[in-house]
Amino acid sequence: MQESINLKSKFELFSDHWAPKVIAQMNDYQFKLVRLQGEFVWHEHTETDETFLVIEGSMTIEFTDRTVDLKEGDMVVVKRGEAHRPFAEHECKVMVIEPMGVINTGSERGPLTAENDVWI
Amino acid sequence: MQESINLKSKFELFSDHWAPKVIAQMNDYQFKLVRLQGEFVWHEHTETDETFLVIEGSMTIEFTDRTVDLKEGDMVVVKRGEAHRPFAEHECKVMVIEPMGVINTGSERGPLTAENDVWI
Repeated sequence: MQESINLKSKFELFSDHWAPKVIAQMNDYQFKLVRLQGEFVWHEHTETDETFLVIEGSMTIEFTDRTVDLKEGDMVVVKRGEAHRPFAEHECKVMVIEPMGVINTGSERGPLTAENDVWI
Repeated sequence: MQESINLKSKFELFSDHWAPKVIAQMNDYQFKLVRLQGEFVWHEHTETDETFLVIEGSMTIEFTDRTVDLKEGDMVVVKRGEAHRPFAEHECKVMVIEPMGVINTGSERGPLTAENDVWI
């Protein structure tokens, strides 16, 4: 039985950066909250598109040919296979929507690779 | 090439109720904006879950065994096959996320059945 989920309340349950937390699932897609701060790594997801929706703050996604600025209430769909690098000068709260099992650093592995499928 | 999409700006592009507009697609899933006001029809989606995220205002989803109240920043995933009826006393702006092709009234057809796959 699904109940309502409040995004701001869920954000209060964690404070670490670049570590997505799952708050809901729709079929085989997951809704993940993540706090971003600083510069992420260049990566791509070879199997799927990925959606970013900014809940609070602002961020940038750098692509090889352009930069997309996102503020509260903005979203973007990063297409499958498209190399990108998220960046947030100040902490930014984001909802990421993508199929379950997607690793945050895509085909790259490193210190910023987060544990997958962590629910709050 | 995907650019940023501002939800509030997109809502300014239409004013009709119960008529979802597609603003983005991720794989075979669509992000739809809809303005709700009044009472919708009881229906279910036999093939898929469906997500509601309230962008502005408040709404209620009535289920056969309970009622879920949603305000700005709240979301809920309605499970596949679960009969539900959305209601909004005052106009409420909502983002619906679901696979492309889903009809707003599910297995019911009537005056509130909206044209599908309308992009803004």
